Amino acid sequence: MKQKAVPTGGCALHPRFRILSGAAIAFGPGKADLLEALHTTGSITKAAGQLGMSYMRAWTLIKTMNRCFRGPLVLAIRGGTRGGGGAGLTETGLQVLKLYRRMEQNSIRAAQPDWKKFQALLKKESGRTK
Amino acid sequence: MKQKAVPTGGCALHPRFRILSGAAIAFGPGKADLLEALHTTGSITKAAGQLGMSYMRAWTLIKTMNRCFRGPLVLAIRGGTRGGGGAGLTETGLQVLKLYRRMEQNSIRAAQPDWKKFQALLKKESGRTK
Repeated sequence: MKQKAVPTGGCALHPRFRILSGAAIAFGPGKADLLEALHTTGSITKAAGQLGMSYMRAWTLIKTMNRCFRGPLVLAIRGGTRGGGGAGLTETGLQVLKLYRRMEQNSIRAAQPDWKKFQALLKKESGRTK
Repeated sequence: MKQKAVPTGGCALHPRFRILSGAAIAFGPGKADLLEALHTTGSITKAAGQLGMSYMRAWTLIKTMNRCFRGPLVLAIRGGTRGGGGAGLTETGLQVLKLYRRMEQNSIRAAQPDWKKFQALLKKESGRTK
């Protein structure tokens, strides 16, 4: 279900949708990855670990998401006896994730004709960072 | 020519395409805005000022772009007698900018059906930051 970049030679197209709700970033690529990891692992600690973020960062993102939508996306228990913090996606959470991934896929598809032309302008190898 | 978010109530959808070439970010929203500002102002200093970035930052982004594409996107003169640093877009630069903006527009259009459903799940007002 995770977003795929279009691999062609050494270059790739990464669409990133950011959804703003007032001043808050209600949803975006990082939150989508977190939902996915929570769904797979059922644990905040494991999901955070998988994404290389701290437990606190994951917790903050969850709080933001739950605040921005009509219903919570994640039901989470912080800490707990084993300190792991269990978590699961709600029906709304699953729906939001599905819609987001489909927007990404449709977006990549719609960009294809221009992306081919764009690629023709890129050097085959550019190597260095930044 | 600048990318428009889709304004509906208090929330907006911002697609951001990032184009990777090897380890380098060959192009993305920041570089597109910079090309646009360079095209409008004809000056690195003015373009950087318009975008709230330092002259050095703009210069670094220009160098990266020029290295990643088959031909340079920007012809720039650093410093100069008035210290302004003149700049103009090449034919390739104009083409890259046009293709990028069109990818964004087509992407927004393709995401519309799901974006409407997504919006229905967002709270009307979420206000606070983060």
